[in-house]
Amino acid sequence: MKKTTLFIIALTTCVLSYSQQHVSKTPIDYVNPFIGTQRMGHTYPGATVPFGAVQLSPETDTIMMYDAQGKYNSNVYQYCAGYQYTDSTIVGFSHTHFSGTGHSDLGDLLIMPTYGTLQLNPGTSANPESGYRSTYYKTSEKAEPNYYRVSLKEKKIDVELTTTTRVGIHRYTFPKTDSAHIILDLNYGIYNYEGKNIWTYIRVVNDTLITGYRITNGWAKNRTVYFAIAFSKPFKNYGFQLPKEKYQGFWRRFDLIHHFPEASARELKAYFDFEFEDKEPLMIKVAISPVSQEGAILNMLTETPTWDFDHYKKAGQEEWNRELNKIKVETLTENDKVNFYTSLYHTFLGPTIYMDVDRKYKGLDQNIHSADTFTNYTSYSLWDTYRGLHPLFTIIQPTRVNDMILSMLAHYEQNIHGMLPVWSHYGNENWCMIGYHSVSVIADAYMKGIRGFDPVKAYWACVNTANKDEYDGIYYYKKLGFVPEDKSSNSASKTLEFAYDDWCIAQLGQAINDPEIKLNYPTFIKRSQNFENLFDPITKFIRPKNSAGQFITAFDPLNTHGQGFIEGNAWNYSLYVPHDVPQLVNLMGGEKRFEQYLDSLFTMELPDQYFENTEDVTRDGIIGNYVHGNEPSHQSAFLYHWTKAPWKSQERVRMILKKMYHTEPYGLSGNDDFGQMSAWYVFNAMGFYPVCPGSELYYFGSPSLVQAKLQLENGKTFTIKTVNQSEQNIYIQKVMLNGKELKVPYIKHSEITQGGELIFYMGKKPKK
Amino acid sequence: MKKTTLFIIALTTCVLSYSQQHVSKTPIDYVNPFIGTQRMGHTYPGATVPFGAVQLSPETDTIMMYDAQGKYNSNVYQYCAGYQYTDSTIVGFSHTHFSGTGHSDLGDLLIMPTYGTLQLNPGTSANPESGYRSTYYKTSEKAEPNYYRVSLKEKKIDVELTTTTRVGIHRYTFPKTDSAHIILDLNYGIYNYEGKNIWTYIRVVNDTLITGYRITNGWAKNRTVYFAIAFSKPFKNYGFQLPKEKYQGFWRRFDLIHHFPEASARELKAYFDFEFEDKEPLMIKVAISPVSQEGAILNMLTETPTWDFDHYKKAGQEEWNRELNKIKVETLTENDKVNFYTSLYHTFLGPTIYMDVDRKYKGLDQNIHSADTFTNYTSYSLWDTYRGLHPLFTIIQPTRVNDMILSMLAHYEQNIHGMLPVWSHYGNENWCMIGYHSVSVIADAYMKGIRGFDPVKAYWACVNTANKDEYDGIYYYKKLGFVPEDKSSNSASKTLEFAYDDWCIAQLGQAINDPEIKLNYPTFIKRSQNFENLFDPITKFIRPKNSAGQFITAFDPLNTHGQGFIEGNAWNYSLYVPHDVPQLVNLMGGEKRFEQYLDSLFTMELPDQYFENTEDVTRDGIIGNYVHGNEPSHQSAFLYHWTKAPWKSQERVRMILKKMYHTEPYGLSGNDDFGQMSAWYVFNAMGFYPVCPGSELYYFGSPSLVQAKLQLENGKTFTIKTVNQSEQNIYIQKVMLNGKELKVPYIKHSEITQGGELIFYMGKKPKK
Repeated sequence: MKKTTLFIIALTTCVLSYSQQHVSKTPIDYVNPFIGTQRMGHTYPGATVPFGAVQLSPETDTIMMYDAQGKYNSNVYQYCAGYQYTDSTIVGFSHTHFSGTGHSDLGDLLIMPTYGTLQLNPGTSANPESGYRSTYYKTSEKAEPNYYRVSLKEKKIDVELTTTTRVGIHRYTFPKTDSAHIILDLNYGIYNYEGKNIWTYIRVVNDTLITGYRITNGWAKNRTVYFAIAFSKPFKNYGFQLPKEKYQGFWRRFDLIHHFPEASARELKAYFDFEFEDKEPLMIKVAISPVSQEGAILNMLTETPTWDFDHYKKAGQEEWNRELNKIKVETLTENDKVNFYTSLYHTFLGPTIYMDVDRKYKGLDQNIHSADTFTNYTSYSLWDTYRGLHPLFTIIQPTRVNDMILSMLAHYEQNIHGMLPVWSHYGNENWCMIGYHSVSVIADAYMKGIRGFDPVKAYWACVNTANKDEYDGIYYYKKLGFVPEDKSSNSASKTLEFAYDDWCIAQLGQAINDPEIKLNYPTFIKRSQNFENLFDPITKFIRPKNSAGQFITAFDPLNTHGQGFIEGNAWNYSLYVPHDVPQLVNLMGGEKRFEQYLDSLFTMELPDQYFENTEDVTRDGIIGNYVHGNEPSHQSAFLYHWTKAPWKSQERVRMILKKMYHTEPYGLSGNDDFGQMSAWYVFNAMGFYPVCPGSELYYFGSPSLVQAKLQLENGKTFTIKTVNQSEQNIYIQKVMLNGKELKVPYIKHSEITQGGELIFYMGKKPKK
Repeated sequence: MKKTTLFIIALTTCVLSYSQQHVSKTPIDYVNPFIGTQRMGHTYPGATVPFGAVQLSPETDTIMMYDAQGKYNSNVYQYCAGYQYTDSTIVGFSHTHFSGTGHSDLGDLLIMPTYGTLQLNPGTSANPESGYRSTYYKTSEKAEPNYYRVSLKEKKIDVELTTTTRVGIHRYTFPKTDSAHIILDLNYGIYNYEGKNIWTYIRVVNDTLITGYRITNGWAKNRTVYFAIAFSKPFKNYGFQLPKEKYQGFWRRFDLIHHFPEASARELKAYFDFEFEDKEPLMIKVAISPVSQEGAILNMLTETPTWDFDHYKKAGQEEWNRELNKIKVETLTENDKVNFYTSLYHTFLGPTIYMDVDRKYKGLDQNIHSADTFTNYTSYSLWDTYRGLHPLFTIIQPTRVNDMILSMLAHYEQNIHGMLPVWSHYGNENWCMIGYHSVSVIADAYMKGIRGFDPVKAYWACVNTANKDEYDGIYYYKKLGFVPEDKSSNSASKTLEFAYDDWCIAQLGQAINDPEIKLNYPTFIKRSQNFENLFDPITKFIRPKNSAGQFITAFDPLNTHGQGFIEGNAWNYSLYVPHDVPQLVNLMGGEKRFEQYLDSLFTMELPDQYFENTEDVTRDGIIGNYVHGNEPSHQSAFLYHWTKAPWKSQERVRMILKKMYHTEPYGLSGNDDFGQMSAWYVFNAMGFYPVCPGSELYYFGSPSLVQAKLQLENGKTFTIKTVNQSEQNIYIQKVMLNGKELKVPYIKHSEITQGGELIFYMGKKPKK
């Protein structure tokens, strides 16, 4: 079975490659939403528009977070986006998904078309006929930006999905049947567990419209998704599956299961029955809202007034082409183009729009707010995305950057903790990972000239966030100059990241002309040097200390677990001083030793034992001991610029581009993390990367594209060209900016936004 | 112990009675909120303003609906209002209560002051020291309209409570202590059970303000109460009691229990710590909202801008005096005055205002609505209150009647079932009891000239409600002319009440000048005769039939249970044809036999077995087989007007007034049912009663007052006087209206609203 599938994939890929050479194509033709859907990528193949609030995608399994014995089930991890490419069954189509995250939530409003005997349980993949689940024809599966289709096998139903920003649109084509059912499973959820549903509610308004909501306590502790669902044809009959309730009051006099127009329960499923002629399509519109059922109806009426599935598909695809055309590229191979546009596609999957068409949304204070002057965004996977994704947005999405910062500031104001987002989604803070990297996003944007927000207000939001003593060791960090491991785990990672964030605050403060703010500069620039406090001069690694100021004794710099670091070992994390590499080089023993350290990183043999308990990176994501599948090393390859061998950066980058990004479903070497992995690709394919967001410098790697034309929002164009580009010519010989040779290994943000032309002259040998 | 308490009560009563004779008093001085708080009255003694949204009252126990084995605990019944007068402990003070209902919900936001070792569990009444519960000094307990006070015993804290419409105000006077705690128990609820709390949320905004909400699934399946709580002095410290959660995500890095500013869980308690000097008062304001935390804050800022407890108490008491002074009475005894004003007080405890100060509220569709043009009311115990309470409002609260009807019509529009309220509270329908008596309230108001609503719209709302086939046997009722017992239990009660309601619809329709509506008259007037279909000519009782049209065979007309009736037996219910007594008299065999039937009703000896399973009526509430403690017989005493012995009505009414209403805490003979029992008293003390709401006739009983002066909203005054009034002179000799002798046994509504003077001439002997 497995072999057949792989053969079919290979065949499909070949056919695609062949056809790509011979027709006129648009960017979306190069996007393959299946990339990242196998193994660790955690992307979803379903339909969505750029930054859309609805992500309508197939679910291939319903793993629960805890097994029947209450034990954490680590298999849940692969279903962060509800889908694994190699799974043989589909359990339904749900409307909300994170792209590429390493933990999850959502999966709201699972809908599944079926017929025959009504089954309200999903069944198992081993025995799909035991439920509403179905096998499907792998060859029938097709994924494009804003379009997904598949043909189910047990039940011969063709499924097509498309979306608008806030509405998912299903088109199901049935065989002739008098017993069709649409299942709406409000129990289903990604990272689901017994008790995650707080409450669900359905209201059957009439025979083509239902509304309701789902409240969950998951990664977000207080999340409500309201919905409105419209059918293109009236259902004949409907009913619910409700848990038996201890107390029903006078409702018990009714038949609450069959044809009763409202239901509310912790766990709730509904079915809607139809008759169909052969090939008769049923369309379903599912609008969501963070505010109310009324909000969902308004979203539906506004965005999808008609039943023209093809129109919505086309409109969304045109929107994708507009967005993707912001970077027009020429590549050495068609696969490079697929990798580039798929990466760019991934970068536009989040943060997502979080407000109704009337601009209302539910904030962190659980009150309804109105984003009158900006577009409100949610789902900030900031520990990942501050590194490359948000800097990428400063170039090609500056309006959205501004809106995202305004969204973060609104979050700050609504947040009882008085902090900017750490990892927030749907009006909730989930506190995932470490640091306070909102400050990086804000400082980076401000340093790059984005000015549609109040910098003074933003600055104090940053400072208050960084001074939140209760948060994650900050009290000790301020007191001792480092986070002590006995007080807060992953203390070394925290110390390093806090120090970088503090440098961002210092830079932001210096850039604002405000005397009170300037008084703070010494404090934060001093804090930014706190990495030095954990540098162990003996082992030459960053090494955690306890609160007595002693380095911890048991210390394995290759081990990712229990060593004071998170998602990285000391080997990798010791390089994380993006804002003061010269001082790091000093501490490490000078340029020569630093170069050797970097060489070792990329070339050492890492014993298998170090992978055993690492769920989110496989061997695929590692080169030597360099971990590309996790984020802390994303700037490491560029550090050769601070040695005598900058050409080694070119070599490493080109190797990473080649080894870590493929056009297969398993093509991503680790979680895409809401576009950070993909943003790394987009930048580096063009030849540069923001080693230290908050500075306006992009350091050169080695461009893999032939040419890239950036259409900027200010109307200017910035073109990147390569001369002598080839698979072998990976070394930069010379860089010309607007006809003048660049003598520095970076380009400034302002040089890009002014428009112009950057030419890389490539060669087979390093230019030493 | 018990004896001492009773002695103290007796003493207090004596002292009160003495003092009452010697000072100038206002109506509130005659209100004793303890009446009905012992045994079956189900009233609460706490503070509230007329029709106020907050009812801030002590809770004396925390009985759960189900015991540890999951069995229904019938003891819950006595705690419908959270309080039993004879209980020895107080567990706290909560903010929402129904007055006098026979089932319950609410009890939101329990607050308890305490000190010493922190205890977050309530403890038991047998061992109050095992929890935050406390015994109290019964002699210290005082209840006035909008004021309640008590001194706790274990913990020497003086408690005082008052309210505004949407805010409860607590004043606690502590002894010197450095370990005072205010407990906020969000688990507590009336008619509570494991799982009733869907979700609760607390947000500690600062050291004097907290906000949050509580969502419950109880009698109301989807009820959210938002709150804002302000303290007059900052707390030193705070913390939570949270259940252990299986999944905590990254929140686990925090100490979520101690001094963490937000908490959400199914079950949640909080504590706030203070230090106090001796006699230092702490005030707490608790505002509620059906809309949002913001709404609660706005309610608080608007209604209670200062910390002047005495001002709010006084303002609420003045409001009570304004309302109670709408009927100024002179009585034979002080106790009569207590009974009268306490009854009138009870009639103004509901329906309650259900909207924020900005007019917003959550509707049945779970959307937020704005009552722009009316005051929105909730908590309609309609099966009880359509009989006497709403008719009383047509005389002394016509503006509120109009608002209540507009509230009902809004309910109708928001209700997915397309029905007017049956028993609704807090944007929910709880479906309690039977019939569709909203139509009676609407028809009665319209017939009496209340016109601030669209009668055509109201009419069709009534018709659609009455034609809701899925509801409670209506399908069969329409098809067969009666509800068959094998299809819907309590079928005979339903048939009788539907028939009466249908008569109301017919009357309303005839009064509206609309040709389409008039076409419906024959249908509804025919339906109103459906009672005849269940009249058994052999037994001369109304008797349920099965769907084959046969009378059920096992039939005990004295038994209240399983005989086709609810809260009444066939003996009582067979008299329930208020709209066509003449035809009932015919069926029963003529006037003489009808009179005998009534005589038997009031004089027969009812064997004990008939009380065994009747939870809501005791021997106290029964005269012979006449049940005053339940509502179906509330019109029975007046039916002598259709015999040759109308003076017997006078006799019976005067007996009921005397036997069923007392000034003791156990003074009510059954559930007050949101004022219906009390409205009966108010009417009958004045000498008349609405035997058939929907007609404008009030039939005479026998007035017990000396004089009553009704101040009407139209500016007119209607005065009721008695001549020769005494305990013995219970028979009406003559009635003069505006100087002319009345030749009919009733007065019309319009005769009252025109203003004037009604004089009853009383005598010792019946005027035959």
